[in-house]
Amino acid sequence: MRNLKVMMAYRGTKYHGFQRQENALTVQEVVEKHVSSVLNEKVIINGCSRTDTGVHANNYCFSVLTESKIPPRNFIRGVNGRLPEDISILECEDAPLDFHARFSCKAKEYIYMIHNSESKNPFTTDLAYHYRRPLDIELIRLAAKNFVGTHDFRAFCSGCDEKKSTTRTIFKFDVEINGESVKMLVKGDGFLYNMIRIMVGTLLAVNEKKISVNDIGSIISSGDRQLAGKTAQPHGLYLNKIFY
Amino acid sequence: MRNLKVMMAYRGTKYHGFQRQENALTVQEVVEKHVSSVLNEKVIINGCSRTDTGVHANNYCFSVLTESKIPPRNFIRGVNGRLPEDISILECEDAPLDFHARFSCKAKEYIYMIHNSESKNPFTTDLAYHYRRPLDIELIRLAAKNFVGTHDFRAFCSGCDEKKSTTRTIFKFDVEINGESVKMLVKGDGFLYNMIRIMVGTLLAVNEKKISVNDIGSIISSGDRQLAGKTAQPHGLYLNKIFY
Repeated sequence: MRNLKVMMAYRGTKYHGFQRQENALTVQEVVEKHVSSVLNEKVIINGCSRTDTGVHANNYCFSVLTESKIPPRNFIRGVNGRLPEDISILECEDAPLDFHARFSCKAKEYIYMIHNSESKNPFTTDLAYHYRRPLDIELIRLAAKNFVGTHDFRAFCSGCDEKKSTTRTIFKFDVEINGESVKMLVKGDGFLYNMIRIMVGTLLAVNEKKISVNDIGSIISSGDRQLAGKTAQPHGLYLNKIFY
Repeated sequence: MRNLKVMMAYRGTKYHGFQRQENALTVQEVVEKHVSSVLNEKVIINGCSRTDTGVHANNYCFSVLTESKIPPRNFIRGVNGRLPEDISILECEDAPLDFHARFSCKAKEYIYMIHNSESKNPFTTDLAYHYRRPLDIELIRLAAKNFVGTHDFRAFCSGCDEKKSTTRTIFKFDVEINGESVKMLVKGDGFLYNMIRIMVGTLLAVNEKKISVNDIGSIISSGDRQLAGKTAQPHGLYLNKIFY
């Protein structure tokens, strides 16, 4: 028995997230089919994360247990030769048998891309959120600092389970600007459902003066989802890195 | 009578180039329809350049004569509200009546994007040419220098008219690398049909040792299309800037 650790990238536009679902096309279903074909046995792949419909991944990890003796290089070529053009295997290596893409994960880094311009960008229609109003980057940076650290992020979670811990640690929340392209880079030890999209929506509400930068601390401590901003659209979000 | 100078960007993937054709969808046809609707009169738009099927534009200029008194800002909003998501109006201003997007043009700058990696990039499928072999950037830069200057580029033209001049001046041909992304930036006073794509194909042939870097000068002077490299695929090419 071997345990393969595989890195891939995918454009999430056409998929209902990573995780297999009835009656909806998912990344897991497509990848599993081609991985099984190359390994010549029916396998289940263990993904590092669910992702929402329309969310992308620059570096997504899955692990898969197999009896196959295929060299990693041939695995990459074989799977890439079968995959559609919106999914690409980047790396494959043998990992210890107890490695699990999801449970072994120590931290994750996400990117949220905004195209900030009055005119839309025809090249990033499904790859960045088009935000027309001027962005006060310094104000957004100041607001984002409130998220860094260990907090109970219940106010930044959609439909959270009452019984589970909603405390997470955010290591960094950087905001970079390059012309009309704004990149928010968030690294943390884990994220609640919709957490990054709600944090981004809250920062945009701060930009629009609907929420004061001074209120973010009290919104966090309130634990009240209603006080935070809207859930930002999924197509600006990328799982960027995963740390083991 | 007014003459509007309009800048736009488009993703060329779905279009058979800019110029109107029978039985094929073109950028001109789509833009003309919505511009006519906003100007409330049937107009013809004058594009700065034909572009091939699948070629993109970061900054494409067209001019249009109109009797409409619409303010440029309203023109942009009105047309953008009607256009599909792969075409975007960026700017609009009043220009002298003798301005013509094509005939007034002094120089053009094109970009050719290459994704250089064994694995494909799911985000640039139709936006960069996927080239798997290692690229010797220094060799390509050295080869590209041969194109700079005033030359008869007949060897770098598909189906050129025997009677027309094929002499053009290339002001610069830069090759930039950023991780797996390679950008070739070419500025010239004008370009023959397929000229940039043939130059790029020739540079890739140099990379593959099918053409020697020392032979480029003699290929240029031969005027023989057969001696130059293949025509590189269209989807890596962008009209990037236009100079008046």
